Amino acid sequence: MKQVNVGILGCGTVGTGVAKILMDNKDIISSRVGAVINLKYVADIDTETDRGITFDDGVFISDANKVIDDPEVHIIIEMIGGESIAKEFILKAINNGKHIVTANKALLAGSGNQLLSAASEKGCDIFFEASVGGGMPVIKTLRESLACNKIQAVTGILNGTCNYILSKITTDGNSFEDALAKAQAKGFAEADPTLDVEGFDTAHKLSILSALAYGMEINFKDIYVEGITKIAPMDFEFARQFGYSIKLLAISKDNGNGIEARVHPTMIPHGNILSNVTGSLNAVTVTGDGVGDIFISGHGAGMMPTASAVVGDVVDIARNILSGTTGRVPLFSYQKENIKKVPVLSINEISTNYYLRFSALDQPGVLSKISGLLGDNGISIKSVHQKDRKTMGSVPIIMLTHSAKEADMKAALSDITSLDVVSEDPVIIRIEDEEE
Amino acid sequence: MKQVNVGILGCGTVGTGVAKILMDNKDIISSRVGAVINLKYVADIDTETDRGITFDDGVFISDANKVIDDPEVHIIIEMIGGESIAKEFILKAINNGKHIVTANKALLAGSGNQLLSAASEKGCDIFFEASVGGGMPVIKTLRESLACNKIQAVTGILNGTCNYILSKITTDGNSFEDALAKAQAKGFAEADPTLDVEGFDTAHKLSILSALAYGMEINFKDIYVEGITKIAPMDFEFARQFGYSIKLLAISKDNGNGIEARVHPTMIPHGNILSNVTGSLNAVTVTGDGVGDIFISGHGAGMMPTASAVVGDVVDIARNILSGTTGRVPLFSYQKENIKKVPVLSINEISTNYYLRFSALDQPGVLSKISGLLGDNGISIKSVHQKDRKTMGSVPIIMLTHSAKEADMKAALSDITSLDVVSEDPVIIRIEDEEE
Repeated sequence: MKQVNVGILGCGTVGTGVAKILMDNKDIISSRVGAVINLKYVADIDTETDRGITFDDGVFISDANKVIDDPEVHIIIEMIGGESIAKEFILKAINNGKHIVTANKALLAGSGNQLLSAASEKGCDIFFEASVGGGMPVIKTLRESLACNKIQAVTGILNGTCNYILSKITTDGNSFEDALAKAQAKGFAEADPTLDVEGFDTAHKLSILSALAYGMEINFKDIYVEGITKIAPMDFEFARQFGYSIKLLAISKDNGNGIEARVHPTMIPHGNILSNVTGSLNAVTVTGDGVGDIFISGHGAGMMPTASAVVGDVVDIARNILSGTTGRVPLFSYQKENIKKVPVLSINEISTNYYLRFSALDQPGVLSKISGLLGDNGISIKSVHQKDRKTMGSVPIIMLTHSAKEADMKAALSDITSLDVVSEDPVIIRIEDEEE
Repeated sequence: MKQVNVGILGCGTVGTGVAKILMDNKDIISSRVGAVINLKYVADIDTETDRGITFDDGVFISDANKVIDDPEVHIIIEMIGGESIAKEFILKAINNGKHIVTANKALLAGSGNQLLSAASEKGCDIFFEASVGGGMPVIKTLRESLACNKIQAVTGILNGTCNYILSKITTDGNSFEDALAKAQAKGFAEADPTLDVEGFDTAHKLSILSALAYGMEINFKDIYVEGITKIAPMDFEFARQFGYSIKLLAISKDNGNGIEARVHPTMIPHGNILSNVTGSLNAVTVTGDGVGDIFISGHGAGMMPTASAVVGDVVDIARNILSGTTGRVPLFSYQKENIKKVPVLSINEISTNYYLRFSALDQPGVLSKISGLLGDNGISIKSVHQKDRKTMGSVPIIMLTHSAKEADMKAALSDITSLDVVSEDPVIIRIEDEEE
């Protein structure tokens, strides 16, 4: 039986899962691929930790370069993470003609275009299904299944940590801090949760999906990013009363004038299938002009689901190697010459519905002042709700608006916060309504 | 630019959609594939109907054989439906070395193994993503993304007609007949709805998914099939009270003793993501040993979603042709030599929880007689509910059981129906509980 040799660089959680699947499911993989996928090396500088796997002699080594330089290795699985060493190793491996599988979204968001060019020049595949949504096959769906569709939108819950925290606040009424502590205790959040809770991890993933969807270079730096740290439990309660859930959404759209790509807490109606995605699950809705909406959900992280996606890519590349082809599917969904540098629209250019919560003094005329300033800036109010709970002499005033431009909203809010009767910075949550 | 020539046989609803996508999205397809997918022929014996498409001269013809015999045509898209002519044309096309795309689940369920053998021998691809779940990429996910997983279960809502009807009964309290009439008025059900409402269409699809999941030949005839025509509105109301929805589920499992494959109305807890799939949507949960649960949902039927999946397959085959490979992914997920004839377990061997509704005379001792006979047959009761609504002197008695073997349940029900105090055949609905 033919053999495809692979080497893993980095044996942390996901690297260990990949080794497990390649070893435990060797027979089932062979029965599908018609060849043996042979785990020739696992390289990690930490040679002490017990990973619960018994490797054959000579498989576990400490020197990544030995893997990269071995002419018998066909596929390098980069499981190191981070942007410096991982990038160096990948570029060296491509230079040696190796195919690459990676789950490294931060690296792809920062250097994906460079890696793509290097791989294309050398005729190597770089596959990265596990970089977005763990075990969910969203990248294959975009690159292959929907190849005949004009993609109109990609909307997703792409960070399990944030979704777990938001679910806890929703169901248990926890503060953000308490929910974060619970997520950390459960192992769903890192000790330093910044990358997750400030939305950057989600934005890394959105930059990858947007490139695949619209035929653009990866453009992470233009994505608007807002995290989940500033929403109060009462906003979740008000959202529920209005029929909405609050999720950290990654939203990208071809809106006719350009590409929107933004990450922010978002109210979505209870009827939206994404609102039922709770806990640490990930999910994405892809909208195409032929297929309509396709919804995919699954475990967005964790050892085995992520490893499943990594080995799925290994199988794909092995099939290319065995059938003597490479670059069968273009790495970023479109042929290289059709990938454009596309500017992402500024958040100021985006129009959306808004939830606004003002803390105002309980005085006559406040409502008329606030709504007047919104009107002066061309913002049309859908409904106003004055809630009777007082905090330090202030009452929350909730307004839901019709579609308004972010630039106009900013101008209005700047006027409103300068009012004496408004006691705190307003809370602003964008709404994605179906019927908008 | 290179060119791949395709011909469509059959220009009904989906065939028309395929032609539309190939023509309207020609540029976007080329920008991804790096070649032109050229619609050389559309053949249909009905040359009169206005399909809203202007074909170039010579494209629309009435003679399918001209398409099949043209040496310039690489891919035949079979959109005729039915099992006789479609099969004849496909076999002839394979004999001519053509690759095939079809959405014909009835044909695959009946003759898939034969078509597979014929295609393998000739080195042709047969792709059939659109045969299950319309635009949902469940077949690609099983054949490719999850290739490193031992598949443990596939559970799905695979017939939009039934799901629409069941949703209507649930939300509006309609009778089956009224809900069917509404589905027919909306175009969601055929004039003769038998294939849909009796569960056969769902079973056709389950036979395909089971083959792909477990490495078995297509085995339609052994699948247990029960339709949705016998459930009363009150069962939906009782189900709701117990926290369940009723769906027509396609269930297949590798349960350790063998392969279960069955189609029947099923109660699933409200927390199960499949219970939120309403209207004519389709959805499937695939469970693998690495990936855990993956959930995919989308439009399971309709002109454009189905056509999207068809053209997705055309793109896949075109990429094989352009990269000079064929049979890169085995047609039924496993290498031919690893596909086994696997018997599907008889429904009598299956264990599941049950919902039972008896119509019994309102007399003392009835409950003890029924529960005694269940106990005599080794069936353990989880809860009993005597509802106070009388119909013709009878009262409904609802029992939920712990896991019981179908053979034991049949024996018990045979004893129970022979009781004088039981006035009608009992209603039996199987329950799929997460914690079972």
